[in-house]
Amino acid sequence: MTDTPRVAILAEGLFTRTTAKTAIGVLRYARYQIVAVVDSTKAGTDAADHVGVGRGVPVVATVDDAIARGADVLLIGTAAAGGRIPDTYRPFLSRALERGMAVWNGLHERVLSDVRLAAAAKRGNASVRELREPPKELPVGGHRRPRVGATVVLTVGSDAAVGKMTASLEIVAALRRMDETVAFVATGQTGIAIAGEGIAVDAVVADFIAGAAEKMVCDAAEHADWVIVEGQGSLTHPGFSGVTLGLLHGAGPDLMVLCHHALRWSMKGYDDGLPLRTLPELVRIYEDAAAWRRPPGYPPARVVAIALNTGDLLSSEPPDLALSWIQSASTVTKLPAADPIREGAAGADRLARALIDARGRGAATSTS
Amino acid sequence: MTDTPRVAILAEGLFTRTTAKTAIGVLRYARYQIVAVVDSTKAGTDAADHVGVGRGVPVVATVDDAIARGADVLLIGTAAAGGRIPDTYRPFLSRALERGMAVWNGLHERVLSDVRLAAAAKRGNASVRELREPPKELPVGGHRRPRVGATVVLTVGSDAAVGKMTASLEIVAALRRMDETVAFVATGQTGIAIAGEGIAVDAVVADFIAGAAEKMVCDAAEHADWVIVEGQGSLTHPGFSGVTLGLLHGAGPDLMVLCHHALRWSMKGYDDGLPLRTLPELVRIYEDAAAWRRPPGYPPARVVAIALNTGDLLSSEPPDLALSWIQSASTVTKLPAADPIREGAAGADRLARALIDARGRGAATSTS
Repeated sequence: MTDTPRVAILAEGLFTRTTAKTAIGVLRYARYQIVAVVDSTKAGTDAADHVGVGRGVPVVATVDDAIARGADVLLIGTAAAGGRIPDTYRPFLSRALERGMAVWNGLHERVLSDVRLAAAAKRGNASVRELREPPKELPVGGHRRPRVGATVVLTVGSDAAVGKMTASLEIVAALRRMDETVAFVATGQTGIAIAGEGIAVDAVVADFIAGAAEKMVCDAAEHADWVIVEGQGSLTHPGFSGVTLGLLHGAGPDLMVLCHHALRWSMKGYDDGLPLRTLPELVRIYEDAAAWRRPPGYPPARVVAIALNTGDLLSSEPPDLALSWIQSASTVTKLPAADPIREGAAGADRLARALIDARGRGAATSTS
Repeated sequence: MTDTPRVAILAEGLFTRTTAKTAIGVLRYARYQIVAVVDSTKAGTDAADHVGVGRGVPVVATVDDAIARGADVLLIGTAAAGGRIPDTYRPFLSRALERGMAVWNGLHERVLSDVRLAAAAKRGNASVRELREPPKELPVGGHRRPRVGATVVLTVGSDAAVGKMTASLEIVAALRRMDETVAFVATGQTGIAIAGEGIAVDAVVADFIAGAAEKMVCDAAEHADWVIVEGQGSLTHPGFSGVTLGLLHGAGPDLMVLCHHALRWSMKGYDDGLPLRTLPELVRIYEDAAAWRRPPGYPPARVVAIALNTGDLLSSEPPDLALSWIQSASTVTKLPAADPIREGAAGADRLARALIDARGRGAATSTS
């Protein structure tokens, strides 16, 4: 790894809006330079043509093409449930390693557990950064509280992959525009790839989900008045709900922002159809679950805003439709709602003001 | 490991009713022979004098004493939150390994990760069985359903260590007395030590809690009409709630039995006092959380009985107090209640009949 990495993103055959979540997050938010996306099926085009962000970043066919553009890191830019390295990626990874590139991997499967990739890394004297590798020692949750005066915010969701990390980062930026001191707590591989630190709470030993979250939140609260925690999964998700509840109870938020994908009607990846809960039901579910663990003396944690992801409406529908979606989400929940991407700073500021207003009401902060 | 192990249980300094949960479970239920308990602070006494079970099993001072009584396995018989091997245990483990005993370990920390213990195992050509080691490949939850006609039961609780495994095993025995075909699904180290198989869902990578539970339940349902799943933790536990929800959503129970320790008023191990929820609140919490994930076409999962652990009342209180506790639990929840240990088969049968009645009403089974 270098101090100023020049990163290529591997998304072979999968560089689309629905499959390249990590790539999109990094293209939108990383402060290091992205020099190329590797997807041979789209070589010669511009990243933004496929995922709406990354204008000016070329899509190239091979690792060698990426190196020719100065890349010294290859970041795996997609993440499927289950976290296996796609077999189609292995030749690209092998080539990168034998040419001495660092590989950044956010999947559950470890790069060097593949003997061929380990051999390639040895040939190229290359390093691998496993974004999901947890710290060696983690505490059990429930034994620390954040600094009094800090306000902890958790983004929660109707499903996985609805925009919790994006909403978190946009809220961080909005609060900073309002001269607040803010820390971002990354809890997943993309957030860690962007922030450069964090713990992937879905990759720790299950007994330590809450402890990992609590440690990050309490540490962050030492030096910031706002701690914005990237949420994971959904309490209603049949595979990942345990991670979500452990994170909720470990982070112990004062305030929550409920995130939802405007066109998502059933759980992503479940063909037999698991309908999503309505927004008012989800508000109640998250507030109930937060209260199960909240110790005496803490006021109940509240959902105070709705962050909508209307991104898939971008090109195919009239813009009014997205705005009416946002308005209706606000109407049914009686909470401020915004799409911080579609609406830009105005949307993110609306979410941030909802948080500041809630703190001002003393509705729920660690100070009380 | 041998086919007919002769087991000594290590509980040095900790062989008490409140600290030796694994020892108690194994003494009560294991079908292999327990030849001794190792706790030098209680050497020369009988196991039952300290934990109420294991009459006739001697407490000895050293591993050599246990070997003299025929032991070829040393099972670690205690489990503290966090799962570190106590330092006081290491000399005993070292001696056992260098004398060629197999060590069975249910803690998170792995025996052979201690270089001295690894060296001792090498000297003694000894094996270690890590009860919490998960399978290499686990699925993401939500993609399988149990065989139609099988009824899945999960024990759930007000806290960790309230008697969920005990209630599960007593229900298994009661249903078998009623000529039902029953499978027990072990989800924790003690259950695995007793049953000889299972997956410790608190030790898997967090994304796979539900998948591990679902796999075990669906496999078990192939050959049994009743699948009784050992619960873990509590939805209200600040450290372990993620494991509990993942297990609840992965197991996808038709029916639940709520377990509670009659003298537990606040979370075990949390000095600042986290009061437990009332039984009616807990019934609602578990039924709500089960419904979050339950797909369309499944009736809601119901708590249909209360299993109380009144064990700590055993010697110090009049027996009427325990029975009035059980009666009051039944009154406040309007559900059958029993202590399957204190009341023996009559208590366990009451729980089993509650399950059979609920299945008969078609209230919630996978057949509907």
